[in-house]
Amino acid sequence: MSLWLKVWAPASIGNVGPGFDVLGMAVKEFGDAVSVHRSDHRGIRIVEIEGAEGLPLDPRENTAGIAAQEVLRLTKRSVGIELRLKKGVPGSGLGSSAASAVAAAFAVNELLGRPLDKTILLRAALEAEYHVSGARFLDNVGASLYGGVVVADPLRREVLPLGTVSRAVIVLLTPAKKVSTRLARQVLPKKVPLQGAISNLSKACQIVAAVAQNDVALFGASIQDFLIEPHRARLIPGFQRVKTAALQAGALGCAISGAGSTIFAVCGGHPQGARVGLAMRRAFPAEASFTITSIDSHGARRIA
Amino acid sequence: MSLWLKVWAPASIGNVGPGFDVLGMAVKEFGDAVSVHRSDHRGIRIVEIEGAEGLPLDPRENTAGIAAQEVLRLTKRSVGIELRLKKGVPGSGLGSSAASAVAAAFAVNELLGRPLDKTILLRAALEAEYHVSGARFLDNVGASLYGGVVVADPLRREVLPLGTVSRAVIVLLTPAKKVSTRLARQVLPKKVPLQGAISNLSKACQIVAAVAQNDVALFGASIQDFLIEPHRARLIPGFQRVKTAALQAGALGCAISGAGSTIFAVCGGHPQGARVGLAMRRAFPAEASFTITSIDSHGARRIA
Repeated sequence: MSLWLKVWAPASIGNVGPGFDVLGMAVKEFGDAVSVHRSDHRGIRIVEIEGAEGLPLDPRENTAGIAAQEVLRLTKRSVGIELRLKKGVPGSGLGSSAASAVAAAFAVNELLGRPLDKTILLRAALEAEYHVSGARFLDNVGASLYGGVVVADPLRREVLPLGTVSRAVIVLLTPAKKVSTRLARQVLPKKVPLQGAISNLSKACQIVAAVAQNDVALFGASIQDFLIEPHRARLIPGFQRVKTAALQAGALGCAISGAGSTIFAVCGGHPQGARVGLAMRRAFPAEASFTITSIDSHGARRIA
Repeated sequence: MSLWLKVWAPASIGNVGPGFDVLGMAVKEFGDAVSVHRSDHRGIRIVEIEGAEGLPLDPRENTAGIAAQEVLRLTKRSVGIELRLKKGVPGSGLGSSAASAVAAAFAVNELLGRPLDKTILLRAALEAEYHVSGARFLDNVGASLYGGVVVADPLRREVLPLGTVSRAVIVLLTPAKKVSTRLARQVLPKKVPLQGAISNLSKACQIVAAVAQNDVALFGASIQDFLIEPHRARLIPGFQRVKTAALQAGALGCAISGAGSTIFAVCGGHPQGARVGLAMRRAFPAEASFTITSIDSHGARRIA
């Protein structure tokens, strides 16, 4: 029997602050793992899914399975691969399906001797997401694959990795109640105020500059969204209270992670992070847990 | 008689590509000069304006005069200063009044022994612009003061200097016919498509990353505007032809400078810049001149 090879891909925050559909950021602590090995039966077979219920084992209906098949298709290899998926991203809004797709694409590519580079793996994972969700979350997929903070270019389906903010402490508040990404898309208007777009443009540019300068104060202060948050905040009852509590407890910035319901805050250090996490959980009116972590700067990687 | 002190402030491109009201960039070759010296009569007196007709000598109606007075007000100095202004920014869309305001504020501050830092000089120049034009062009004023590429933050009235793209060759096509900034504001809608805002967000973030990485190819390719250009292009008959000609001649990117009528292109080198400049002028249906220059990385400075 051939050996199993194991890959891990981090969870990620999409729509970072002002960067709707554009800025993504990988976080440590959570992620999905995919193990693969060669088998005698041609094609992809998912033999086990751990850590989540109700996910289809059929590789044509599972982001990991589709991403794995896409890598086979792109490399024109007709081999057999068995795949085990271990889900490790809690709640919603942390790029769970992106992590699965990225881990699977990366793992199959490793097993085949790395015929594809990351720009192609990105597209394989992106197509998998699209098949399952009907949308391409380039910011999540890119962050999970490359690590650090990334700029997604939806027009070119490419991602620009920016690096990390080494001192940034990221606090994640994960409500038990999830938000449907599909619903979160539906509440968005087709048109937005030009003034809001200008404000988001300025803050998003400052986030990129903050990463380039490794400046956590500027990074946190630029986590401000004038376009999307007003619409999506109502999908997370208690969001405004949590945000206010986070900022009052010393967070540099606070916003919805992806489409929610996860809320994230950026802090400048660890004792502050703990205070902010407690304050956020206390302010949230329903069940939620908090996690203190930091930016994952490596992205998808082989761990066994 | 006291000695004259002379300051030069560069012309600038506002609204750089996708960064409406946010990204500014100083350019060499053109700029305004302000000379000042102490006099016995309290207050600001403009004794000469060279290089432009019809500008008021009354310091309360002239951006240079207002900026100079604002510096006196902020420093609470009741001295007398005589000011000479030499205009050197052609056409419209290159931050001509911003250059005057910046040069005057900078010059008076030098004469007083530098009591104010640049964040305050920025506001003095900004107020001067506001008095005369009714709007605050933070991207132009910031670029002219700091040099290089800047991110303007309209909410905080601050500017973040990013540095320069050393290899970028900037081609300026300056039509003889100007565009009124006021009219150019009037043609803008209050609301813009969310998809366009996302595209601009991505491209603006990539411009900031390009400056951080000193990457002229990424910088030029990111000069794309999906929000404003469709509305303002009609104010510059021939714009589309000029843009197409620039890109076909090898420009990496091409867009309206500020509110126009100046059009700028970014090239990766000098022989290319000359080809692009000729192609742009040939494509423009009316009188225009072109200039090949580069990013001014110093901003306002004392030259005598």
